[in-house]
Amino acid sequence: MDLIDEVLERIKPTDEENLRIKKAVEDIITKINENIHNLMAEPILVGSVAKGTHLKNPDIDIFIRFSTSYERNFIETFTLELGKKILENPVINYAEHPYVNGKYNGFDFDIVPCYYIEDSFKKITAVDRTPFHTKFVLEHLSDDGKDQVRILKQFLKGIGIYGAEAKVQGFSGYLTELLIIKYGTFENVLKEAESWRKFKIITFKDHGKNLYEKFKAPLIFIDPVDENRNVASALSLDNYSKFIHASKEFLKERKINFFFPEIHVPEKMPERNTKILHLILPRPELVDDVLYPQIRKFATTVFRNLDEFQPMDYHFYVDNFIHIIIESYFLDLPDVMVHEGPPVWDKNSENFIKKWINKCYSGPYIKDGHFYAYVERKYNTMEKKILNIVEKNSIGKDLDRIKNKLKFSRDINTIDKKELYLFMRKKFPWEY
Amino acid sequence: MDLIDEVLERIKPTDEENLRIKKAVEDIITKINENIHNLMAEPILVGSVAKGTHLKNPDIDIFIRFSTSYERNFIETFTLELGKKILENPVINYAEHPYVNGKYNGFDFDIVPCYYIEDSFKKITAVDRTPFHTKFVLEHLSDDGKDQVRILKQFLKGIGIYGAEAKVQGFSGYLTELLIIKYGTFENVLKEAESWRKFKIITFKDHGKNLYEKFKAPLIFIDPVDENRNVASALSLDNYSKFIHASKEFLKERKINFFFPEIHVPEKMPERNTKILHLILPRPELVDDVLYPQIRKFATTVFRNLDEFQPMDYHFYVDNFIHIIIESYFLDLPDVMVHEGPPVWDKNSENFIKKWINKCYSGPYIKDGHFYAYVERKYNTMEKKILNIVEKNSIGKDLDRIKNKLKFSRDINTIDKKELYLFMRKKFPWEY
Repeated sequence: MDLIDEVLERIKPTDEENLRIKKAVEDIITKINENIHNLMAEPILVGSVAKGTHLKNPDIDIFIRFSTSYERNFIETFTLELGKKILENPVINYAEHPYVNGKYNGFDFDIVPCYYIEDSFKKITAVDRTPFHTKFVLEHLSDDGKDQVRILKQFLKGIGIYGAEAKVQGFSGYLTELLIIKYGTFENVLKEAESWRKFKIITFKDHGKNLYEKFKAPLIFIDPVDENRNVASALSLDNYSKFIHASKEFLKERKINFFFPEIHVPEKMPERNTKILHLILPRPELVDDVLYPQIRKFATTVFRNLDEFQPMDYHFYVDNFIHIIIESYFLDLPDVMVHEGPPVWDKNSENFIKKWINKCYSGPYIKDGHFYAYVERKYNTMEKKILNIVEKNSIGKDLDRIKNKLKFSRDINTIDKKELYLFMRKKFPWEY
Repeated sequence: MDLIDEVLERIKPTDEENLRIKKAVEDIITKINENIHNLMAEPILVGSVAKGTHLKNPDIDIFIRFSTSYERNFIETFTLELGKKILENPVINYAEHPYVNGKYNGFDFDIVPCYYIEDSFKKITAVDRTPFHTKFVLEHLSDDGKDQVRILKQFLKGIGIYGAEAKVQGFSGYLTELLIIKYGTFENVLKEAESWRKFKIITFKDHGKNLYEKFKAPLIFIDPVDENRNVASALSLDNYSKFIHASKEFLKERKINFFFPEIHVPEKMPERNTKILHLILPRPELVDDVLYPQIRKFATTVFRNLDEFQPMDYHFYVDNFIHIIIESYFLDLPDVMVHEGPPVWDKNSENFIKKWINKCYSGPYIKDGHFYAYVERKYNTMEKKILNIVEKNSIGKDLDRIKNKLKFSRDINTIDKKELYLFMRKKFPWEY
């Protein structure tokens, strides 16, 4: 069997599953309608199921679209209350926008409030534009195109960059659909990506010049329903780069591993005389989209200030705790450091001498016309240095409050074995 | 007793010594005259004794000035042969210019050939200008000025920067004399030096602009007998800086230590968790003025290429061997290093992947849009790295020939204790 057919068979819902989905959606729509007959509002199916681009066991998104004459507070409270009544095990989620998540007939549903707007760029809440996306895709995507979307989605999942959420910083479902609408097939998208350079701009019509200056992102795909929006704005530079590389590699050698990577973690970790430090912080009660940007800020703030230890790379993962792993040439430094002072002829040189003459390890001495002294190194371990970095800098609004709970370990056995192996081995998912 | 008087008493020759010097000089002049009566040549006393600025037990310089009608080869051979006849334990020296060194009546004599030239800037050999220097100083320096020169010379000796030879890179006797002629007294010279900045230009008359661009040196003192010469050209930036600093410190606190430092080396070396590497090379048979520039080249070439070990400072000294000491944060590095590759979208990225995919420790992976890999670090000790630096670079014409004899030691007991202590403690001579 052809590789692509094999992938499709594993990911595409069967007719039987689609019937069950259809029935579940109809039930939910009916239940909503029963509760809103005296309101200016209507339920609407959106997302991948509405567009027919869903994989097996999809999340199903139902919006309730309200007239703009209702207060925001009302439509939110009403929707959340109704959702809790209709769905099993309902959970209310307040990230950017509130919604209810829950089960119905074994499927995962989100019920979300939004406003009915006439123009897609006049949105009031973050999700008012979504029905326009659904409409655009339905009008431009053929049945074969839908399967191509499914294959591209699975490829992106396989290489670890599917999803626009903060945790992933990858390709959204809508972006995947637009790429297929633009280039026709999964393979054409990859062939295009092979030629993408430092950045790539994609549009359906002429939107003028200077789009890079306007959006400042590696991939800019102008939303056909709102020219002020870059559909790919969540995509990080590294994930953009990974997609280019994966496209080239896949077109060179088509392997199932690109879609379904298999990672075997060996007993023994790589050995190379380097040092590993493990940072551990309790995970605060926050949704991922709020938490991950802060972890990223935390990790980069720390990593960028460790130069003297010659750090190599870092990685983070989250369970009940936030874990950051740093690999470095060194974790310990000498008790002294070379401290450069002003030129000898500078008016500040007298102060430098006064300050250090009786409290330095060596000097002050002269080199290349400057004063220097060997002074005490306050932060002679990476742990001490990180505590100082974290004290002087914000590591995110919520993490700042629990800074004082930061713990360190030099024992690699405190680290999740798979995370450590992937971090140390640094292969691409399809290479394992 | 006044500090300056105390210094003078210790350094100024007594009348009795000056009489003995005078007698010895007259003897040598007579002996030379007996041998050159049929030549167009004359002996002439030059140097500090001729100028009356000599310290106790001086080197005495006698030039034989020949007519320019003689071949260079002849005047050199003639002078060297004659010198060997006149002086006890004669040694012939060929640095820039050949001469005989030897003893007479307990004094150290140099006998040197030169040409009689009419204009000081029309020199043929390196030393033809010297008699003009002698004449200029005799015409411009008072008796008190001569003592001021002696004090300044001893101050420069005490702080370790007296002598224009390659080993020292400091102030020549002539430069010292010109400074006193210019500023009158030892103390005035120091007061002037307090205000010297990144560079200082001193002249007796207007020599136009752009002198810094012409001479490119921290101290530029235009030779009054040759405006194309900077008398201070041998002075290094660090010795220039040291002089400024010592001047300030002496004027703040007048101590005998500036003239006669006393260095006590303690049993125990400073401790600060750093690493010391000792490089040892046999000393080739070369005069100091040829050897020291090569050692400096050797040491700086090595030191400037050690960044990854975070070296702090280096020092060298010479006995039967050339010794270089390096203090560094590290002497050992991990077996791997982070190797940066091209951007992912670059046409060279394919070669990078091909080259490293099967021979790197980790990766290739993507970070900030670039490929990286952890590759084997070939030079994971400072010794290996230095052998590689020395192999790839010239460390001086003569040292290059004995490169292969370079030895290393991490045992600080192989290092001269005083040299090591001074290197580690890094105080100025007057501070011990």
